[in-house]
Amino acid sequence: MPTTTSRSTMTIGDFLLRRLREAGISHLFGVAGDFNLEFLLQMEDGNELMWVGNCNELNAAYAADGYARLNGISGLIVTNGVGALSAINGVAGAYSEYVPVVCVCGSLPLKSLDRNLLMHHTSGDTEYDAVLQAYTPFTVAQTRLTPQNAVAEIDRLILTAWQLKRPVYMELPSDIAYLHVEVPAEPLDLVIPPSDSERLSTCADEIVARLTSARSPAILADIDADRFGVVGEIQELAVKLLSPIAAINTSKGVIDETSPHYVGLYVGAASAPEVRKAVEGSDCLLAIGVRRVDTTSGGFTAALPADRIDVRGDAVDIGPDNYQAVYLKELLGRVVDRLPCREQPAPRAYAAVPSSEVSVPSGPLTQAAYWNLIQGFIREGDVLIAEDGTSEAGGWGLQLPPGCTFVTQAIWGSIGYTVGSVLGTLLAAPERRHLLFVGDGSFQLTAQEISTILRHDLKPIIFLINNGGYTIERVICGKDSHFNDIANWAYADLPKVLHPGTTARTFVVRTAAELQAALAAPHDGMIFIESVMDKYDAPQPAIGAGRGMAEVDYGPRGPQRRPGVQI
Amino acid sequence: MPTTTSRSTMTIGDFLLRRLREAGISHLFGVAGDFNLEFLLQMEDGNELMWVGNCNELNAAYAADGYARLNGISGLIVTNGVGALSAINGVAGAYSEYVPVVCVCGSLPLKSLDRNLLMHHTSGDTEYDAVLQAYTPFTVAQTRLTPQNAVAEIDRLILTAWQLKRPVYMELPSDIAYLHVEVPAEPLDLVIPPSDSERLSTCADEIVARLTSARSPAILADIDADRFGVVGEIQELAVKLLSPIAAINTSKGVIDETSPHYVGLYVGAASAPEVRKAVEGSDCLLAIGVRRVDTTSGGFTAALPADRIDVRGDAVDIGPDNYQAVYLKELLGRVVDRLPCREQPAPRAYAAVPSSEVSVPSGPLTQAAYWNLIQGFIREGDVLIAEDGTSEAGGWGLQLPPGCTFVTQAIWGSIGYTVGSVLGTLLAAPERRHLLFVGDGSFQLTAQEISTILRHDLKPIIFLINNGGYTIERVICGKDSHFNDIANWAYADLPKVLHPGTTARTFVVRTAAELQAALAAPHDGMIFIESVMDKYDAPQPAIGAGRGMAEVDYGPRGPQRRPGVQI
Repeated sequence: MPTTTSRSTMTIGDFLLRRLREAGISHLFGVAGDFNLEFLLQMEDGNELMWVGNCNELNAAYAADGYARLNGISGLIVTNGVGALSAINGVAGAYSEYVPVVCVCGSLPLKSLDRNLLMHHTSGDTEYDAVLQAYTPFTVAQTRLTPQNAVAEIDRLILTAWQLKRPVYMELPSDIAYLHVEVPAEPLDLVIPPSDSERLSTCADEIVARLTSARSPAILADIDADRFGVVGEIQELAVKLLSPIAAINTSKGVIDETSPHYVGLYVGAASAPEVRKAVEGSDCLLAIGVRRVDTTSGGFTAALPADRIDVRGDAVDIGPDNYQAVYLKELLGRVVDRLPCREQPAPRAYAAVPSSEVSVPSGPLTQAAYWNLIQGFIREGDVLIAEDGTSEAGGWGLQLPPGCTFVTQAIWGSIGYTVGSVLGTLLAAPERRHLLFVGDGSFQLTAQEISTILRHDLKPIIFLINNGGYTIERVICGKDSHFNDIANWAYADLPKVLHPGTTARTFVVRTAAELQAALAAPHDGMIFIESVMDKYDAPQPAIGAGRGMAEVDYGPRGPQRRPGVQI
Repeated sequence: MPTTTSRSTMTIGDFLLRRLREAGISHLFGVAGDFNLEFLLQMEDGNELMWVGNCNELNAAYAADGYARLNGISGLIVTNGVGALSAINGVAGAYSEYVPVVCVCGSLPLKSLDRNLLMHHTSGDTEYDAVLQAYTPFTVAQTRLTPQNAVAEIDRLILTAWQLKRPVYMELPSDIAYLHVEVPAEPLDLVIPPSDSERLSTCADEIVARLTSARSPAILADIDADRFGVVGEIQELAVKLLSPIAAINTSKGVIDETSPHYVGLYVGAASAPEVRKAVEGSDCLLAIGVRRVDTTSGGFTAALPADRIDVRGDAVDIGPDNYQAVYLKELLGRVVDRLPCREQPAPRAYAAVPSSEVSVPSGPLTQAAYWNLIQGFIREGDVLIAEDGTSEAGGWGLQLPPGCTFVTQAIWGSIGYTVGSVLGTLLAAPERRHLLFVGDGSFQLTAQEISTILRHDLKPIIFLINNGGYTIERVICGKDSHFNDIANWAYADLPKVLHPGTTARTFVVRTAAELQAALAAPHDGMIFIESVMDKYDAPQPAIGAGRGMAEVDYGPRGPQRRPGVQI
């Protein structure tokens, strides 16, 4: 803390924009609406943040989520009521998946609240806190700015989002953005506070002691490994311990999959035998933020050793002991420092990424041939965005080259997410190649955001599977039910409708050879490949997961075991 | 109440489907998801309700809203978390605008709640009530069904929605839909209970006395007039009183605009002089459900007589007296019965709908020429769905032939609403002509739902104004700001992408003559007319309302008076 704080005055809107910039945000997602136009004018006048301008607020929230996953934090601007509630599902996804999104809602003028005026974009009553209440279960902090609290609250919310890696919700009344307040001159200091020194020391010593004396230590990484930036520490630990690292499917790609320490995804009983053995057979498993969710635990078949060490962003469990005020990055850094190196020879070298020589079977394109060709196509540094369903399940089977990022919603699982998200990842890391994997059913929810991607001249490679509906649901319940059918669009014709004159290269492929030819196209603009596949064809992990899900969801009286109800 | 209740057993899912049918619902809107698939299978097996199958949940909610406005009530099926939160903005709109939508959320199995299991489509925690909490401010009743409460709660929620004309939210856990419960044999009785007899009598007498002795009685109708089905009573009252009727813009078209009693829309200071005089000068104004919202009161310029009678769905205010347990339809029926007829000659006959002879100016198409041609095109019985913004403002200027319905969100004002809503109105009243008026900016939010309209072979006439962005916002703030620009789509090419082989007739018109030619097209399928207009051209009421809104929203320090900030 500086001993003296220099202060000047600034409008509330400009101060908020300044803090968003200082937090590392360069782009703002959202939709213009009358309660935020004055703030957007400040943004345009200030000329420091780029307005993305989404087609709708849910898509904007998804884009903000994707951006934050690669950029560390993001900003989302909506308008009162209609905008905020349209975006809430995307913000809730960020909450579920530990993604820090700062949602700024241009909201009712304070005058209206003071005078009990009934306003549009509300329920026509004086329940002014209604939207804020709706956001409360899905954000880690909420506030309504006032001239008196604005400076403190803006800093509190942005810092809370950054520290906890989860979204916050802030209402900016439309009549205060141009009011002047006294503000600190210092930039926002994005830090996680130091741990309590005794707790940190005791906890680190206990972990070091356990890991040192273990015969078969192992590491299992969930989302926190990525969000709190401790991948380096985890890899150093594995080197010192000569231990395997497995990943939960929420965090595929976070650990370098070509590392000799990486063994694969742990998904309970559905895991590869060597992964199960490494995780379940470990006499000292270091679990990084592991949550036992049905879709990330192989339908609750995960069997983690009871005496494991559970470290999370801000707390640790070791057997009966719980440690508070111990923060993940500092803790793992301490453990790495104190841990002695093992002297045994290194464990067996694990397989590198398979060569790109792939088979090209004849006949209609199958999921197996599809993912085989994709495996050959991906390369170091790619960003893969995989939609819930068969795209995600297929993606889990890929072995990623170094430096890849795999974006998916393994817990929240909101279909349509990826079409918005890829807009965000593209803007956050324009120098990388972005591969979107999405099914037709999911694509239809958010398809218009392709327009925003084209408008900003971004160049994703879009892999759309056209298999006539919700194949993942045909696996779960309703193999031939009409409610799993969807309209059949001319998907590949969409880019030229959403951006007349586009240079996007579009393909409709029905065989492996056609897909292979499309993959060879020059990447000088958007590439959009619609792959037509059988509606009953699904990657094997999707079939296993879908059937397990039906058992959990519907129980013993459910319809799932009737003949013909499932693929 | 029957003295004996015969009972049988039925699955919970089948009972819910039966009650939805008994409430008058024939179609269900929504999106399939794993927590509702078992219920959708019951629906498909039962074969009594038609599954619409929307592209996404927000569009589904809008469609359910449109359907309920014409059908009286509707059903919306979503899945836990992701589906429910995607739909919430549409349900909140229904809450704001008094539209009864029964939202059924296929939710987590009760087993998971019992055992504290972490599930997908949640925040990965045990906050199982999170979504229900989010819905609480935007619905009049909420519940989670259990085998014990299902029968009573299903009836309570459907009846509450119907009685209060507002949405309800019901969670159907995925593992109970196939469990058997004992159910009553009698159909659901959709009734509003009788009023308290003394309160009703006293209240009716007081109203009759005041109206009888008034020199200039008048009636002002807001949403309740439509929702509680009292248009007949209002018109009978006007005939007996020889009084004028004005309407709030929420309820345009509810009162026959060719009636000699109808004087026009009352929008405060922006009203026609004869409307202001009739309303503000009345010595006994009967206000039906009037709410003083900024967008429905001419920006709070409405000046209703202080001693008016305010009747609402379930309560009445007369000066200092408040009457509870008095229900609107029964009350107005009683007033009509007891009110003597006036003997004076009828007031002046009001204008009928102008003839369809319209001017066709040369040069680029203007808003003025556009609405003039639309005026000539609309005919008795049409359903007009008008989107927030210039489409709504233009629509308010139309004089409607008898039997028309005007659907808009004058309070909630969620852009994109109409594209979903028209799907609902089409299914609720397939025998009528449905005219959608929407701007390019609004259209982009929900455009994919055109696919569902085409898939079900519905035939709306779509009037899309392409004026390069959010013109209504250029009026408010940001005349030339980039945040009011949008991508320019080839809108008229969209139908053939969303439904290859469609017979939709599509037009892009740039002059009044071209619009006139398009209007003459045979109506044998969807008609889609994209009208290109100048981005600064807006109907005069939109300019007045937009400028007023900027003053209310941004206050004296706002940017709205800077040169060039507004159209």
